[in-house]
Amino acid sequence: MTTNKKVKPAQPGGFNDYGPAAMIARGRMIDTIRRVYELYGFQPLDTPCVEFSEVLLGDGGETEKEIFRLTGPEEDKELALRFDLTVALSRYVAANTDLLMPFKRYQVGNVFRGEKPQAGRFRQFLQVDADVVGAKTGLADAEIIAVTAAAMAGLGIERFVVRINDRKIHDGLAAAVGIDARGPLTRGEMVNELLRVLDKLEKIGRPGVRAELMKKPEYEADRALHLSAEQVALVERFLDIAGDNGEKLARAEALVRGETGAAGIAELREILADLRALGWDERVEVDLTVARGLEYYTGPVLETRLLDLPEIGSVASGGRYDEMIGRFHANAIPAVGTSIGLDRLFDALQRLQLVTTVESEVDALIIVFDAKYTATYLDYLRRLRAAGISAEIYLGSDSGFKAQMRYGLRKGVKHLVICGEDEIAQGGVQVKNLATRNQEFVPAERLLAYLRQPAVSA
Amino acid sequence: MTTNKKVKPAQPGGFNDYGPAAMIARGRMIDTIRRVYELYGFQPLDTPCVEFSEVLLGDGGETEKEIFRLTGPEEDKELALRFDLTVALSRYVAANTDLLMPFKRYQVGNVFRGEKPQAGRFRQFLQVDADVVGAKTGLADAEIIAVTAAAMAGLGIERFVVRINDRKIHDGLAAAVGIDARGPLTRGEMVNELLRVLDKLEKIGRPGVRAELMKKPEYEADRALHLSAEQVALVERFLDIAGDNGEKLARAEALVRGETGAAGIAELREILADLRALGWDERVEVDLTVARGLEYYTGPVLETRLLDLPEIGSVASGGRYDEMIGRFHANAIPAVGTSIGLDRLFDALQRLQLVTTVESEVDALIIVFDAKYTATYLDYLRRLRAAGISAEIYLGSDSGFKAQMRYGLRKGVKHLVICGEDEIAQGGVQVKNLATRNQEFVPAERLLAYLRQPAVSA
Repeated sequence: MTTNKKVKPAQPGGFNDYGPAAMIARGRMIDTIRRVYELYGFQPLDTPCVEFSEVLLGDGGETEKEIFRLTGPEEDKELALRFDLTVALSRYVAANTDLLMPFKRYQVGNVFRGEKPQAGRFRQFLQVDADVVGAKTGLADAEIIAVTAAAMAGLGIERFVVRINDRKIHDGLAAAVGIDARGPLTRGEMVNELLRVLDKLEKIGRPGVRAELMKKPEYEADRALHLSAEQVALVERFLDIAGDNGEKLARAEALVRGETGAAGIAELREILADLRALGWDERVEVDLTVARGLEYYTGPVLETRLLDLPEIGSVASGGRYDEMIGRFHANAIPAVGTSIGLDRLFDALQRLQLVTTVESEVDALIIVFDAKYTATYLDYLRRLRAAGISAEIYLGSDSGFKAQMRYGLRKGVKHLVICGEDEIAQGGVQVKNLATRNQEFVPAERLLAYLRQPAVSA
Repeated sequence: MTTNKKVKPAQPGGFNDYGPAAMIARGRMIDTIRRVYELYGFQPLDTPCVEFSEVLLGDGGETEKEIFRLTGPEEDKELALRFDLTVALSRYVAANTDLLMPFKRYQVGNVFRGEKPQAGRFRQFLQVDADVVGAKTGLADAEIIAVTAAAMAGLGIERFVVRINDRKIHDGLAAAVGIDARGPLTRGEMVNELLRVLDKLEKIGRPGVRAELMKKPEYEADRALHLSAEQVALVERFLDIAGDNGEKLARAEALVRGETGAAGIAELREILADLRALGWDERVEVDLTVARGLEYYTGPVLETRLLDLPEIGSVASGGRYDEMIGRFHANAIPAVGTSIGLDRLFDALQRLQLVTTVESEVDALIIVFDAKYTATYLDYLRRLRAAGISAEIYLGSDSGFKAQMRYGLRKGVKHLVICGEDEIAQGGVQVKNLATRNQEFVPAERLLAYLRQPAVSA
């Protein structure tokens, strides 16, 4: 602290501060989602932000490039920041072999993406996840979809839809199209390429998808699908499927091939029946174009759109990942989960004016009208707080009443408590309601009851 | 996910998972502290886990070695994980020049210490801080001490003490002892060395302190104090000061020298008067041995001890740091704060049996007695949740009643809801209270009211 050279108080791009107004609104959102998750029987879990790199990384791929690695005192193995909460959950489940199954956990946690610094791109953001580990497809997936819808409804969002699909149906489409292993590439890799292209539909549109599906491979291990016009037409017939949920599934059933595809149709039918009984079927729409980029999904997938802000993409998404825990564990353990992206959702709700922001929730500010009465002021302060009324005394050095009132107004304090010689003589205080600008004398013995009244707006 | 090589589901030392029982207890603690901070008029703030290294690091020293640096995609400047919440607060204040002052913020956040991996040492831990920025010594310090005591009391801790002292009194001691600049070392550096030695009193005892105070420097820039026996005797007279708070300050006043020391005595006297009016004076003890290691403190300092676990050290500490924001900002901005170490406190409260842990707070588990009634079960589930009763349906694949009951017992569910052919015919369900083991038939229309009753323990 002895240097005089100033350090620039700058932040790296994508790492954001949240000031009081944002934090109060975000805190309410998180509390709401947590309450919904708990209502559905999920238990809280916390895992650290830091894991061994080898735990986080699969077989390379996208995440490999997007990870923040740590250097600190000597380690046997490299450490890194988590990029989602799911991989750590899988690690936790594999490490805790006596865990009660099915394990329904929720987690609120920051995740980190080592992307190139770029405006508007979060490199740290908050996820609020719920997962069911150790339960097969069907009821567990319905519960995950239901809890996602319930969280959205709980946040006061009326116009949203949870779109669902099943990776197995896409496998059945691939079978119908005739996608197969090619050169060094497995059939699975080629099917994943089909998913990757379909996942870009919204971004690149139908002509873009068509071009990508027909693209020729440039080298042996290039996954480009190189479909014929006929094959592309089949994919497009699939993408054109319309109707209500039942009609879509019937039409998809007529088009896909193979056992896996048929299993996918059956899974979604069962899930839809469960969602009907759970009361959430009207919020859920089968959408055969939903693919979800992440390679770890193996069955049903979901994503949630705000109908008034479709352009921001999914605000809550997830799906079934039956093979991930098998990376760590001898036995395959099925799992399904949902993840609410709090930062994106918070931005969206602000744009839709569905969040009310306040700077604070302080009920009373005690004005330092005359410093010689400080003990009296502090005694009032003590009594207010003991009664559960949030209160503070002005701590600044500007002794003027106007400056102190300006502080109270900017902070969003509800009442000013003002007390000078006259008020002390009369055994009470002046209370100024900053919403109504009404001011009146309140005897000391009535002060607590007076401040407990809901503030009346002007 | 195509590899068969298993990754070991291990965690780096000092990075801990918290399972449901711990998380529910920790969540209650955090909520309690937040409520107290809000009662005192503090507003929430969040800053990211990642900052530019140059923001976090001062003039080197201890923190330099203990920092986790990040490597990710290209950056102009190195990034690192924060090691406390205070430096980031200072950066935030300096960057937001239109901030309402005094700024009273609280923050709940993980901090990271790049220590050598070692059993029992946290490398990620949660801090719950409150700070007042932009207010001078006196009332603001009293508020910070009061809010620390109020948080402890709010957590149900009865036997604690907040020890307070003032760095300026130690400066007055240094003046009395005759500590001064030496060679390339400034007086400030030599006084900091005195503080560093006094801070080790509990660890190394009186003989250890004596030895360290008398140690000869081995090279020119070695801060070793090399005090004479006479000087050491003066320090020991200071450390021997006893009595109530007023007596200690009077005795210290007689011993210290210089304006700074006198100012420190006056500051503590004012703070104690304010704490008396705020009702917290009986929890606060002047302790002239409290030094706090961190070099950034400039005035009053505090630390909080649990009287039944003195050996664990301070569970909440802080102080005034009037020069830190000046690292970033042209104007010096005074600041004072407190930091509750949640992980250490949670461990302590567990040892003192002051936390009750439960695995979940689920009111009802619906048993899948016969899968053909699933729609009925889900309808009950929907109605329970709509009434705010936390409920789940058994999602596992073991269809036996015993396995499902075992799940409910281990998860700490309060009631089982059991429904087969007979119950459906009678228009209701069997409800088994898992605490009392009592089971009775409840008609459907009475179920919500029945489950809302508080569970009676056996």
